[in-house]
Amino acid sequence: MIPALDNLVESLTKLPSIGKKSAWRLALHILENDEQYAYELAQRITHVKERIRLCQLCYNYSEEEFCTVCESTSRDNGILCIVEKGLDVLTVEKSGRYRGKYHVLGGALSPINGITPETLRIRELEERVAHGAVKELILALGSSSESETTSLYISRLLGSYPVKVTRLARGLPAGMDLEYVDQITLVQALNERTEISYNKGDNQ
Amino acid sequence: MIPALDNLVESLTKLPSIGKKSAWRLALHILENDEQYAYELAQRITHVKERIRLCQLCYNYSEEEFCTVCESTSRDNGILCIVEKGLDVLTVEKSGRYRGKYHVLGGALSPINGITPETLRIRELEERVAHGAVKELILALGSSSESETTSLYISRLLGSYPVKVTRLARGLPAGMDLEYVDQITLVQALNERTEISYNKGDNQ
Repeated sequence: MIPALDNLVESLTKLPSIGKKSAWRLALHILENDEQYAYELAQRITHVKERIRLCQLCYNYSEEEFCTVCESTSRDNGILCIVEKGLDVLTVEKSGRYRGKYHVLGGALSPINGITPETLRIRELEERVAHGAVKELILALGSSSESETTSLYISRLLGSYPVKVTRLARGLPAGMDLEYVDQITLVQALNERTEISYNKGDNQ
Repeated sequence: MIPALDNLVESLTKLPSIGKKSAWRLALHILENDEQYAYELAQRITHVKERIRLCQLCYNYSEEEFCTVCESTSRDNGILCIVEKGLDVLTVEKSGRYRGKYHVLGGALSPINGITPETLRIRELEERVAHGAVKELILALGSSSESETTSLYISRLLGSYPVKVTRLARGLPAGMDLEYVDQITLVQALNERTEISYNKGDNQ
């Protein structure tokens, strides 16, 4: 009935977890709010595409040639956190507890979908490791079978370098009751159970 | 860390029911999708503000001087559906069962918030009624106390004109079990109970 509104709703429904009803609500909010907000939103959407590129060293999102993490002199060059996508860097950074650097693979191995070691940034990772400064690789990939395969592939490929390869612990997520934990997670938590040692001061 | 992304997230969180997490997800979707989508979305947001104005007769949203409903010659000029906002026109139109015209008030009376009969389009409504073609006004306002007050005000104001004033029925929403109905709705449904009459063919 109102083409400009219908068009906006159509575009908004392409966003993740925005259904037709939510898209209408968002479109009407934009329509009914002041012009300045709408123009600023439109401009910021454009800027995200125009200004953000990939860091030339770790392939994290960046507005400059090298991202702020790679440029930082206060972070440990000896540890690389390997993640699948740029979003994962933001997630790890949010924890505020990681002081090393990153390497973004650009996905996980999935030959059936045409994602092979060549399409990921695994060669670039090997180059960084071969240059020698790296002492530990933390594989912070997901827990899907593709991610597990990727972890395995990388740990084998880089096994010949003098570098420690670790991966994120598997187990119960924080604050979850046992009855809600799925079987695979429970088995992993059992297999990777850790010793409680008051003497070592782990549990105080 | 990446200003362009942070800015977009900030703008997106101002949208209704978009929290920080959703805003991140949307922003990253925009970032990771093709450029064309982002530019089209940005353009459509701008178009909504640039192209949509209010119909000069009923104050519904429109891209022309008069909206498609007002321009339609196949719809009944004798019935006016009074709604609070442009969104309500779209809601009633979606039902596909209303063939009359509209009048958008622009809100509901709320003197405490400075919304008086003068700030709403009640004078314009009275003018339309005074011109004579209108035979029935359907008050399709909400059921908040402000909306009820507005309905009452309009029905009194226009009581002197030869026009029938009706309002939407109050009662059980479709598909709701009795145990979930709130007390006010239940009392209204009791008060406005209708007779079941097989002879009249109402219930077949």
